[in-house]
Amino acid sequence: MTGRPTLAVVGATGGVGAVMLQILSQHADVWGDIKLLASPRTAGTKLSVRGVETEVEALTEEALRGVDVAVFLVPDDVAARWAPLAAAGGTVVVDGSGAFRGDPEVPLVVPEVNAHAARTRPRSIVASPGCTTLSLIVAVGALHAEFGLRELVVSSYEAVSAEGQEGVDALRRQTALVANTKLGTHPGDVRRAVGEATGPFPAPLALNVVPWSGALREDGWSSEEMGIRAETRKILGLADLPVTATCVRVPVVTAHSASVHARFEQEITVERAHETLATAPGVVLFDNPAAGDFPTPADVVGTDPTWVGRVRRTLDDPRGLELFVCGDNLRKGAALNSAQIAEAIAAELSA
Amino acid sequence: MTGRPTLAVVGATGGVGAVMLQILSQHADVWGDIKLLASPRTAGTKLSVRGVETEVEALTEEALRGVDVAVFLVPDDVAARWAPLAAAGGTVVVDGSGAFRGDPEVPLVVPEVNAHAARTRPRSIVASPGCTTLSLIVAVGALHAEFGLRELVVSSYEAVSAEGQEGVDALRRQTALVANTKLGTHPGDVRRAVGEATGPFPAPLALNVVPWSGALREDGWSSEEMGIRAETRKILGLADLPVTATCVRVPVVTAHSASVHARFEQEITVERAHETLATAPGVVLFDNPAAGDFPTPADVVGTDPTWVGRVRRTLDDPRGLELFVCGDNLRKGAALNSAQIAEAIAAELSA
Ligand SMILES: NC(=O)c1ccc[n+]([C@@H]2O[C@H](COP(=O)([O-])OP(=O)(O)OC[C@H]3O[C@@H](n4cnc5c(N)ncnc54)[C@H](OP(=O)(O)O)[C@@H]3O)[C@@H](O)[C@H]2O)c1
Ligand SMILES: NC(=O)c1ccc[n+]([C@@H]2O[C@H](COP(=O)([O-])OP(=O)(O)OC[C@H]3O[C@@H](n4cnc5c(N)ncnc54)[C@H](OP(=O)(O)O)[C@@H]3O)[C@@H](O)[C@H]2O)c1
Repeated sequence: MTGRPTLAVVGATGGVGAVMLQILSQHADVWGDIKLLASPRTAGTKLSVRGVETEVEALTEEALRGVDVAVFLVPDDVAARWAPLAAAGGTVVVDGSGAFRGDPEVPLVVPEVNAHAARTRPRSIVASPGCTTLSLIVAVGALHAEFGLRELVVSSYEAVSAEGQEGVDALRRQTALVANTKLGTHPGDVRRAVGEATGPFPAPLALNVVPWSGALREDGWSSEEMGIRAETRKILGLADLPVTATCVRVPVVTAHSASVHARFEQEITVERAHETLATAPGVVLFDNPAAGDFPTPADVVGTDPTWVGRVRRTLDDPRGLELFVCGDNLRKGAALNSAQIAEAIAAELSA
Repeated sequence: MTGRPTLAVVGATGGVGAVMLQILSQHADVWGDIKLLASPRTAGTKLSVRGVETEVEALTEEALRGVDVAVFLVPDDVAARWAPLAAAGGTVVVDGSGAFRGDPEVPLVVPEVNAHAARTRPRSIVASPGCTTLSLIVAVGALHAEFGLRELVVSSYEAVSAEGQEGVDALRRQTALVANTKLGTHPGDVRRAVGEATGPFPAPLALNVVPWSGALREDGWSSEEMGIRAETRKILGLADLPVTATCVRVPVVTAHSASVHARFEQEITVERAHETLATAPGVVLFDNPAAGDFPTPADVVGTDPTWVGRVRRTLDDPRGLELFVCGDNLRKGAALNSAQIAEAIAAELSA
């Protein structure tokens, strides 16, 4: 390759795509041309990236020609079809969808945790994890490197923007419907107020929490819960790690949170956990309840790192730790992680 | 005792007191006189119970004379001072506050789980657990009786009414402040909109979740988290049970939820867990995700039982189970459990 690599953002018109364009405009610029691709529906739209108005093109093999790295921020089925075509044409694909996360020939990468894995890509595809895994894996990965993870129990508090603009619109509409009322004290009154406006969710979210995200899998598990387990194991290289998760949607626009119970091989203290987290790349330790310091979604939205607070040693297990983590599901949870992977590949191609 | 016992509701003018008066009007009537007591501030107020307008009296030793059973629904310090005085005068006290839950001479009772414990009361006081423990203990107790509980990991989703009317008012005010806006996508915008209107909470709750409830205890734990552990151990009679909890406040008016990871002595299957839960008194099994059946706070508010859904066997442990439970923190979580204890004592006194 001569000169800087050409990048394509596939899905540039989507929710994650919009954050990707912001990030590309903010980060040190490592790219030559940047092409913006989407469906034929939005071809011709103009979007700004690096301060330059750029016309969106329809995703075609022609449009992918000469692209060195393509970041796919599109639905699973679109990625499943197009990523291999792009790879066959010589493009390295970074896929933000769920299409390839479980593929044994596709590395699943979180640069702070397993950057090295991105260098071996038999299919010329690298996958980025799901947003719930990404909300906790940077902190958990740093602790694993130091203390040796042996078990993980996760309960999530997931924001609606993980269901795209439709999710955000549904929560905003519902919030307006329940505001200035005495709702929330009688059975069914929130459901009646929200009516059909549940959007992509199986129950109202305003003044409510809903213990479901993703699609139904075997034995009552959701795809999101299974994903946290499979992805954590793959990223940490711990194929048999016991991981259990319960995923719950909450009325938050953006930023996922998780309550994490972790058991390690070694004994652990809050002091040593603090030391590890305070120096881990991509992590902000924000843990002083006496001063009201613990992360909340409203405070971390729009920021890059994984925020960690409420660090406690499990009272009945000297090898156990409790944490509460928060991270922006559109930044580190989606666009940022894909951008970081793409930038590492750019550095490798330019080297 | 001749005739039906006399009941006093101490704290009749409070949030839990109001629910207690409803419950007394709905349940089979086992009482003779019902006296309503509160602070001198509200003495003279008239409230309806069993369809009868009743004047609230100030709490005094005189007012407690002749009372057989007194249910205390008042702040901890008021209960700590007055419950022993009432007991000294021959009244059996059912205390809904936190003042006596940890007292080894005071039984901590959940009638579906350990009704027998209410019969031994060296101090003539019986305590009712905190609302977060009560949101899960009926379901967990039924599973323990069948499979032998060995470990519990809890993450809570707590409603604001557990902080009284002040908590409800704060959430309603905040919801109005963020409704009809594009808030929730930029750092700090929810905090700016909510301003000083955080009420009794350490951070805004509208479009947010806050990983804190209760007062600060040692090593970063909250009183609520420590309470779940101590109360669960005491109610189940498992003094060394490993219990770990992370308590999180969510923007829900009423009904607490919890994600529960439980490990048992015996192997367990979803089928056997379903059988146990479906027949357990005080539990409603609502678990069919394919049909969208799982409990949410908006659906269970105002009802008596503990609702259980999302029952799954832990994938990496045949003795582990995951559940999501919901219960009304003002009914079973407070007034109802105290009423049930008082009614059992009434039956005992009348026998
Ligand atoms: N939101 C999150 O928190 C999150 C986190 C991690 C991963 N992800 C994943 O990221 C991906 C994008 O999510 P999103 O929330 O940004 O979705 P979105 O807002 O619906 O955007 C979808 C994007 O895909 C494009 N697209 C759809 N069909 C296409 C086709 N046939 N050919 C080319 N482009 C097509 C759309 O283009 P048009 O505008 O032309 O339709 C749009 O740019 C999904 O796989 C999602 O699962 C999301
Ligand atoms: N809310 C829940 O989910 C929940 C759950 C479990 C347990 N609890 C416990 O139940 C108790 C009551 O909670 P709440 O939410 O109902 O509180 P609340 O609404 O503030 O009511 C407090 C009650 O206590 C009375 N009171 C205060 N000081 C008094 C005094 N010096 N002498 C006599 N009465 C006095 C008040 O009477 P005035 O109206 O005269 O001031 C009022 O009736 C608390 O201990 C709470 O921790 C609450």
